[in-house]
Order: sequence, then C-alpha cells, then structure tokens
Amino acid sequence: MTLTVVGSIAFDAVQTPFGERERMLGGSAVHFSLAASYFTSVRVVGPVGDDFTATELNVLESHGVITDDIEQVEGASTFFWKGHYEYDLNMAHTDDTQLNVFGEFEPKLSPESSGADMLFLANIQPDLQRQVRAQCDSARFTALDTMNLWIDTAKDSLRSAIGEADCVLINDAEIRQLTDEPNLARAANAVLALGPKVVIAKQGEYGAALFTPGGFFALPGFPLEDVRDPTGAGDSFAGGFLGYLDGECEAIDQQTLRTAMGYGTVLASYNVEEFGTERVSRLTRDEIESRLVALRSMTDFRLRSD
Amino acid sequence: MTLTVVGSIAFDAVQTPFGERERMLGGSAVHFSLAASYFTSVRVVGPVGDDFTATELNVLESHGVITDDIEQVEGASTFFWKGHYEYDLNMAHTDDTQLNVFGEFEPKLSPESSGADMLFLANIQPDLQRQVRAQCDSARFTALDTMNLWIDTAKDSLRSAIGEADCVLINDAEIRQLTDEPNLARAANAVLALGPKVVIAKQGEYGAALFTPGGFFALPGFPLEDVRDPTGAGDSFAGGFLGYLDGECEAIDQQTLRTAMGYGTVLASYNVEEFGTERVSRLTRDEIESRLVALRSMTDFRLRSD
Repeated sequence: MTLTVVGSIAFDAVQTPFGERERMLGGSAVHFSLAASYFTSVRVVGPVGDDFTATELNVLESHGVITDDIEQVEGASTFFWKGHYEYDLNMAHTDDTQLNVFGEFEPKLSPESSGADMLFLANIQPDLQRQVRAQCDSARFTALDTMNLWIDTAKDSLRSAIGEADCVLINDAEIRQLTDEPNLARAANAVLALGPKVVIAKQGEYGAALFTPGGFFALPGFPLEDVRDPTGAGDSFAGGFLGYLDGECEAIDQQTLRTAMGYGTVLASYNVEEFGTERVSRLTRDEIESRLVALRSMTDFRLRSD
Repeated sequence: MTLTVVGSIAFDAVQTPFGERERMLGGSAVHFSLAASYFTSVRVVGPVGDDFTATELNVLESHGVITDDIEQVEGASTFFWKGHYEYDLNMAHTDDTQLNVFGEFEPKLSPESSGADMLFLANIQPDLQRQVRAQCDSARFTALDTMNLWIDTAKDSLRSAIGEADCVLINDAEIRQLTDEPNLARAANAVLALGPKVVIAKQGEYGAALFTPGGFFALPGFPLEDVRDPTGAGDSFAGGFLGYLDGECEAIDQQTLRTAMGYGTVLASYNVEEFGTERVSRLTRDEIESRLVALRSMTDFRLRSD
C-alpha cells in the first residue's frame, strides 16, 4: 500500500514557554510523512529551495519516506514559518510567514505518486488540493485538511474540494465557521452533506471526534504533563490515522476508523512532547503500541450489566 | 444509602437562542437532587422564601427527594438568577443575581441530613462548605463544586475546603486558575496534592476528565444536535455521578468511578436538551440506561490484537 501526501515542507522557528528553536525541519507534509512512516510506504510531494540539504532529506529517507517528488527549486528558499506560543499552548501566534518556493507551487505528481492507494491533501490552497485530487483518480481514500484562511478567502473552492474528498480533518472552531453552525454535531452533518463519508473534528488537547453518517466516536487527547511544542500535532494525527488505514486495513469501516483515530491520537501526543519532529523521528512501533493500549485503558468503562 | 446536598434553590430567568423562561425552578441543589433521585435517596438542604410554593416543592418530592431541611424564610424571597446565552452555549452571561434568602444562609442540618452516607457541597461560599462538612463526620464520601468567584475572593478558604473533601468537581479553566498551572494534568495533580482522592475536570461540550493518583479517564460530552439550555448541566452531572456511587456502589474504586462518570455525562446531556429541570424531571431509568449504552458504544475501540 502507498500513501501520497501533498503539502508544505518547511523550516520553522518556534518559541514556547519551554524553549525555542531558530530553524528546524517542519511543514505539514513532513509531520504527516514521519507519523505515517511507522505504518506504510509514504511518498511526499512538495517544493523546497536550495537551502534544503541532504541532512533534512535524510530525516525523511531514514524513515523510508520516498522523496522523489520533492521538487528542489534553484535560486529560491524553502517555505519559512515563525511563530510562538504562550502558556496557553492551544493558540499559535504567527510572527512571520515567507512563502518562498511555496508561492509558485504547481503540484506535479509522478505516476507513482498519483497512483497511490491513499492521498492526503495537507492544508494548502483548496484549488491546488482539487488539482492534485484530479491527478489521483485511483486512490481508494482521500483525506483533506484545511484552515480558517481558506474559509475566509476561498470558501467556494474549499467546499468543492471537500465534496471531492472521502474524509475531512478540521479544527472544531473551523468546522463551525465553515458551516455557520455553532452546534458541532449539526456542523459535522453539514460537512457530511457536502460529500465526504468521514469528518474528523480536531479539538486540540480535548482530543478528536469522528463523525460518519449516523455514527459518532470520540477520544480525549492523551494526557501529558509536558507539552513543549504543539506545532504539527494535527498533521501527526493525520499521519497516524491515514498511515494505519493505508498500511494495515483492508476495509475502511467504523471499526478500523476508530482504531485509526487511536493511532492518530498517539502520534499527535508524541509530536507535542518535544520540538518539531524531534520526538516522532525517533519513535518505535513498540512505543506507539504501548501508548495506544494506555489510551484504551483510559477510555474504557463498564456498564452495570457487565 | 442517603445523599445530602447543600446548595442553592432558585428561580431562574434564562434566555438562549432557542427560547426563554421568565421564572423557572433552578439552583444547583435542585438540578443535583433531581439527577441523583434516579439512583438513591436524596436530602436537600437550602433556604427558600415565601414565594417558593407547593408546586416547586412537589417537583422535588415527586422524585422522592426529601425536602425536610429546606428552610423557608418568612418575608423574604428565593434566590434569583437571570442570565442568557448566545450561540456559543458554553458561556453563560449573568444579567442579574438577587441573593435574597441566600445572603444570610447559615446551613443547619437535621441529624438525618448530617448522618448521610455521602455529601455534595454544591457551589457556595467555601467557608459555608467547610461548616457543612464539619457537621457530616460520618459521610464516607464528600464531593465539592466551586467557581471562579471563590478562587478570586476566598482562595485560602477554598483550598482548605478542597483539602477536606474526597472529590472535587471543577471546570477545567477554573482548575488552571486555582493552581496557576496551564497544563491540565499538572493542575489536577496539584489539586490532588491538597488532599482529595478524586478530581473531575468538567469540560463543557468536550465532556469530563477524571484524575486519581496515577489514574486518568475521560469521556466526551454526549453529542446532541439540540442543546436548548445548558444551565445546571454541571450539577446534573454531579447528581448522576454521586447518585450512582451512593445508591448502587459498595466500593468507590476506579471501576465504579468510571461508570459514575458515564451516568454523570448522561444526566448532564438530558439536562441541556430542554430548559431548566424540564427534561430531567420527566426522565426514566430506562432512558438513562439506554443513553449510557450508547455512550459506551461511542467511546469503544479495538486494538489490532483484539
């Protein structure tokens, strides 16, 4: 099974109350790829500049991520994001965004990438997402992430992109904004009505909720005393979620979707324990499994009749 | 088994985007009592004025709630709260508070009330909570609710009251405020360090989390498309939680606490479906059980090895 992701590959400068990094590997496609690499074969599509070196490439390749479709643009710089978090780590404050190579990005997928079994459209402009989706006709499952910027500036395109995806991952504030519906259950149903079979509302430290037609499932965030850098948590969630579905599930059904939510929660929890990709890039599958077992034991309760 | 609750008995005026009521039965002790009445024998302690009639009393008594310790103060009015909610139902806006009989309240418990097996100190001034606690020496389990007002104005008393309770129920924003600790797991541990064996962080529509020394459990809120009035949800949660523990559990342990969290979640979910006590006052135990079964099916997932 193969899984293609299209999204940003970046250098990030991040400051939190627990430390800072001036320049580290980041970007949605990078966080996603590393998380998914524990489950399946991942191909990453996205542009980088001259400043992207073998060192960064090696972080991906050492996890088996296929980087052939990373396009290096000569004379240009890699996408750069600078942000900080205060004690409330739920809220990212952007200090600087330099699109660089990302400003002119026209996704070109090799036959191998466009022929993948699954596709993740990370948070990029929705018309680009649609362009990529159209190149991946044979994917059995396509998931899409987005953000408030596209709800504000490209709502119609975004609604079309959502209509062409099987699964939408979206922050719960954004799902309300997208649908003008303050009630989350109603908002999720309004998104399902656009076409997707699966809507995942990401709720930060509160976890995530899975909506399918007539179905609901929710998991809390894994409780952590030390959260150092939340950057990339949502993409790590998506990587664990889709990586498991692509690599280890023949059927995509209520049961496998729920287990996939568990893996997403686990990967997101490891992501935030350290800066950038530091923790996820040195995970083991045993660590993933043992945290999933712990997560289940934290959500399990008995009925009187049990 | 008997359960005593000390707290407010009120008339509420509430407006939400889904309707309004000019004057309806409310108050923390009322919401708590009705929810708990489905599980155990409840005694309610609190003051009312001349305006509190047989009609209101009958709502409680028809559920078997023992009202002998409701103190009627002649020539005075019942506690009155007026508030509204906008589309974000997570935030109550207070428009008017008339303490009336509550301003001079000195809790006097009959021997029957002070001899109860369990005690719930609803959200009242923490020195009053301590006074009541001292009268209930033989209770095997005491739980306490509080609010930001007491963190701001009586923090030391509140910390003492918490130290004398077995269980604290508190909003997650307030637990952070109380402990000056933005990380919820650390904040909960800081409260456990004050003495209680159980801390429950209430998280509104996101549900609730249970912290015990070394233990963690969380449940999402029950998903509802129609939430009409969230007033009293936290007290209904506490009523379901403590009512089940008092009425149906010999041991208070990780397993019974988790099931009790389930009942709390179910009672809170029914509470918010209609205004005031309207929905909870005409519940059946079958409805409670079937929603608990549904809640478990919404939180259950399998491991690969299952």
